[in-house]
This record gives sequence, structure tokens and C-alpha cells, in this order.
Amino acid sequence: MQGTTNRQWILARRPHGAIEAADFKWVESPIPEPAEGELLVRNLYLSCDPTQRGWMENDTYLPAIRVGEVMRSFAVGSVVDSRSDAFGPGQLVQGLFGWQDYCTTRPEGPYPVLAVPPGIAIETAMSVLGNTGMTAYFGLLDVGRPRRGETVVVSAAAGATGSIVGQIAKIQGCRAIGIAGGPDKCRYITSELGFDAAIDYKSENVMSRLRATCPAGIDIYFDNVGGRILEAALMNLAFHGRIVLCGAMSAYNDIAGAPGVKNYLKLLIQRGRMEGFVVMDYVARAFEAVDALAAWHREGRLKDRVDVEMGLENAPAALGRLFEGKNSGKQLVKIAEDSYTR
Amino acid sequence: MQGTTNRQWILARRPHGAIEAADFKWVESPIPEPAEGELLVRNLYLSCDPTQRGWMENDTYLPAIRVGEVMRSFAVGSVVDSRSDAFGPGQLVQGLFGWQDYCTTRPEGPYPVLAVPPGIAIETAMSVLGNTGMTAYFGLLDVGRPRRGETVVVSAAAGATGSIVGQIAKIQGCRAIGIAGGPDKCRYITSELGFDAAIDYKSENVMSRLRATCPAGIDIYFDNVGGRILEAALMNLAFHGRIVLCGAMSAYNDIAGAPGVKNYLKLLIQRGRMEGFVVMDYVARAFEAVDALAAWHREGRLKDRVDVEMGLENAPAALGRLFEGKNSGKQLVKIAEDSYTR
Repeated sequence: MQGTTNRQWILARRPHGAIEAADFKWVESPIPEPAEGELLVRNLYLSCDPTQRGWMENDTYLPAIRVGEVMRSFAVGSVVDSRSDAFGPGQLVQGLFGWQDYCTTRPEGPYPVLAVPPGIAIETAMSVLGNTGMTAYFGLLDVGRPRRGETVVVSAAAGATGSIVGQIAKIQGCRAIGIAGGPDKCRYITSELGFDAAIDYKSENVMSRLRATCPAGIDIYFDNVGGRILEAALMNLAFHGRIVLCGAMSAYNDIAGAPGVKNYLKLLIQRGRMEGFVVMDYVARAFEAVDALAAWHREGRLKDRVDVEMGLENAPAALGRLFEGKNSGKQLVKIAEDSYTR
Repeated sequence: MQGTTNRQWILARRPHGAIEAADFKWVESPIPEPAEGELLVRNLYLSCDPTQRGWMENDTYLPAIRVGEVMRSFAVGSVVDSRSDAFGPGQLVQGLFGWQDYCTTRPEGPYPVLAVPPGIAIETAMSVLGNTGMTAYFGLLDVGRPRRGETVVVSAAAGATGSIVGQIAKIQGCRAIGIAGGPDKCRYITSELGFDAAIDYKSENVMSRLRATCPAGIDIYFDNVGGRILEAALMNLAFHGRIVLCGAMSAYNDIAGAPGVKNYLKLLIQRGRMEGFVVMDYVARAFEAVDALAAWHREGRLKDRVDVEMGLENAPAALGRLFEGKNSGKQLVKIAEDSYTR
């Protein structure tokens, strides 16, 4: 299987609505040779992130993936050949390596290749210590700026990012309220992750439950979903409340048809702030986040859960699981074993 | 006329849609006596502000005006009797004195009574140096935080607040683009106030004109109107752009039915910030603003225009003019002459 062939998923067409198998095309080509200054990386795990749905359709904070191009994805891989001084064979690295067995890339980017911290499981490196953990870290701390005793609400709270947001909120001395779908996810975030309360958006009235669980209002709402839940959070915003815009899963499958935010004037009434961010802007400060996250993880204050599908052929289905709410924790796809001993 | 009668406009019912004459009721009662610690103020000018429409219908940053209560309004008046050490007879003061000839109030508030700066026309004190000027000053400088060379766009640009926002932007070394209705207003802001460009929302495509006049995007959008113009500004937001939410005139007459902001995710893509503010929060820093505004005004760098209707009986119609776009500059209602010599 691995001999000389590079298996790839390329974007076959722009999706409309939910992701379908026919949006991707499977191709096989020879393993590329690294040019001077490049690395050849053997991908081991692919990261599944909601933002990939956006990349497939629209220019956002990155240009849209071109039709015919390899599906863009964060991944962790092992350097198998190097014509760069930055990394040598056998090193574990992370970057935008795409849905394919092998990738050639310059270490400096466009998006920079980073070393995977030694001594931890790759799965942990891709969840708590990877882009997911950094998204939670910088979004909550830099954009939200929590103060001890404040109330933090996060949506998609049992998801990869949301579960870390709530745990960091607790570490900062805040109350953490999570919004998630279904009793299992709600139990998980309160019993296992230490959230103060959970709201099941599938069976409960989010507006009235927010009022009940946040009697002094929401100081920070970390938004992963948009739509009606964002509006409910705005309705319950505290004076000088902050809304951290991380994503809008409810709208990714239909951006054009998504309803607008009707009550944004709550920002005026409450002197609130709504601010967007993209974790890639913080790459220069990645070490700060990884140091803090790794320490909290070692101390047992930051738990992670990963959901691993097996095989490159299952990447489209694994990505689709995010939008069906099927994953519990960080969704990964394992496509090869690391054959090097580190 | 003035003898012993206090003429008042009280709120007769909550408006739905545009303000109507029947929303108010004219009553006459005896002039009140100031209690210990209170002032008796003879109103001279009433200020007309879009936010009054909100006060008539909903609890916002202030509780809604109660039906049967005097219509709330900023005003300038002359102290005619005082049982407080703060102000004596003959002093000109500003505050929330309402649509009436006479008002009793405590100097410390709920909303504090401020002295009118000496040596300037009352009209100027109520426009450039009053709440209007302070709204522009704190909204643009504190919330928007302009930097030299940035592009500032303001809507309702020929209005009281908007015209000052654009002029302060120029003083800060920014480009100023104004959105206004009709050729006269557009000519006024470019020829007389020094804006770099004007966009006539009544005859031009705001989206494409914003693209043309702001080729590097909008760094700060000072929003007085909401609705489609806010969406057009979001579409043209620059990287790290800021949206200062000052008001939403397009929605005040129908908050519940107002369409939502569909493209708020531009804030995520552009790492933008949308923040609301209320000028009343800055009352402790009023002197800072008045000093700066007065200096710019003396130097001829800050021009103001006032539009004065005569007579308390015309207050409802004068307020209505704001929503019909009929006023040019700050709308005032003169209800009495100041009979004191200062």
C-alpha cells in the first residue's frame, strides 16, 4: 500500500449544504520528491476541524481550497526525507499537510511546520496541545480576557475546543457553563470535566436555562455555533460582556442562507464586545500556549478525549461526523503507524 | 404664557413604528417647587436625539419612559431657584430635564446636572460640546481607537454625531468617508466639513461605493444606522477593523422586525471587533472631552450646524424630523429665551 504510491483526497467540487462523498475524489500518484529546502512528511494522523467546511466553499481567513487541489487539513506526520536544516528524518511534525499519505512542504510555510512536543502521545499533541488547545487558550484568554469569578459560557462544549475552553475557564477561577447536545455530552462535561452546569440544546430551552444558570448574566460567551444559540447568549449578556467568535458550525453548511443576528444591539445596551479571532495569528506565541497547556495536562487539570477513525479512505466520513454531532472529543483519522522510535 | 404654568408633553402610549402625534399628550400643571437639595430649572432648549425613540418603547441602557411620565430629553436650562449648593440662580445647566417648561432635579442625578461652559452659544454647547460631541469623541477615540492614516467610515454623516465623528477622524490624521442621504448632505460633509468622500445611500450602491472609496478596507465603521449599511460596512471591513455601535436609526422604529446582521462572521474572518457604548458611561470624563472639543472648535477645525425648531408645542414634530432625515445638523427645539445676563 505504501510502497511508491501517494494516496490523496482532492476536492472534486464545492459543497452545498452538508458534505457528501462526491465532494471529494480519490487519486493515487507517485510519492513526491522534496525540492531543495523542503521536507517530505509521511502523514500519520489527520485532524478534523469544523473550519475545513469553510475552506471547501469560500475564501475566508485562508483562500478557499481550489477544486482539484488536495483537501486541506492539519495533520501530524513523520519526516522521512529532508532537504532543510530545520527538521531531520524521524522527527514528528505538525502542519497543514492535507488528506494524503505524503506531503512536501517548506518548514517556514505558508503555514509553518512545528515540532510535536516530545514525550507525549500524538493524540494529545493534536488535541490539548495542538491547534485545538491553542484555539481555546488564545480565544478565551486573549480575546475573552476572563477575570476570576466571572461566568463563561461555551457552545459545542463537549467538542474538542469547547471542552478545553471550559476547563481553562475553571483553571482561571471562573464559572463554566457548557451547551451541548444530548445527556451523554452534558454528563461528560459536568461529571468528568468539572463544568458547573450543562445545557442540553436538544431537549432544553437554551434561553431560559441560560437565564437560570447565569443569574448575573454571561461575562464571556465563547461561540462555536452561531445562530439561535448566539442570539440566546446575547440576550443574557452581562454588562461589559464579551463574545468570542470562534466559529459558527450551525451555519457552515449554509452560510448564505443563515439567519442574521437579530439582537446584536444588545452589544450597545450592555456595552458589550464581539470579536473574532483565528488561531493561526498566534503561531508566534505557540510555545507560550503549549507550555501552559502541557503543564495543566500533566497536573491532571486538563483532560482530553479523542475519537479516532481508522484509514485515509474514511477521512470524508470522519469530517462529516463533526456536523452530525457524532464525535465525542477531538476527531482524528489515523492513516499510518509511526515506524520510527523516538 | 409662563406665569405659573408648567407645560409638559407626557408619553401617552408606546409607539409602534414611526412616532405619531398621538403618542404624546399635552398637559399643563403648576410650576413645581424645589425640595431641599433640588434645583428648579427653566428649560430653554430641548435636544432631539434618535435614542429617544428607544426610550419610548423599550428598556435599553435606561429604563423605558413610563406611560404618563414626562417625555425624557436632554435639555439646557437656566436655574431659577436653588435649594442646593451646587448651582445658583442664573446658571446655565444641562441634563435630562424633559419636554417641559420647568423641571425640579437633584444636581447629582440620577443623571448628573452639568454646567454649560461659559462664553459659548447654547446651541454650540448642545451640539459640539454636549452629549452629541461627547458621543462622537468617546465613541471614535475610546472604542474605535483610530491610528493616523486609517480609514474611518461613518453613517448618518451629516447628522449631529456623524458630522463630528468625521471631523475628529480628520483631526486624528485619518481618512473620513461619510454616508448620508441626498446630494445636499453629501456636498455639505465634503465641501464644508472636509470629509474625503461622501456616499449618497439614496442614489448610490453603498457596497460598491465603499469598495471604491476604501480600497484597503474600512478600519473603523462608526454605526448610527444598522441594517443594510452595517452589513455593507462589514463586507468591506479591513483586517483588525472595528465597528463602533452607536445606534441603529434604521431599526428604532421596528426593533422586533429588524432583519439580523447576516454577515457578522466577517468579524471572524477579519479578526474584527464590534463594540457598543453609551455616552452616559463617560460622564466622569466629560471635562476631558469638552476641553478637547472646545479647543478644536475655537481653532475652526470642528464646525457645527444646528437646526432649531421653535416652541415646545413642536417638540414631537422636531423629534420626528430625525427619522425622516429632514434635519441638517443637530436638531434643537427652542422653548424660551434666557432672560438672565451672564
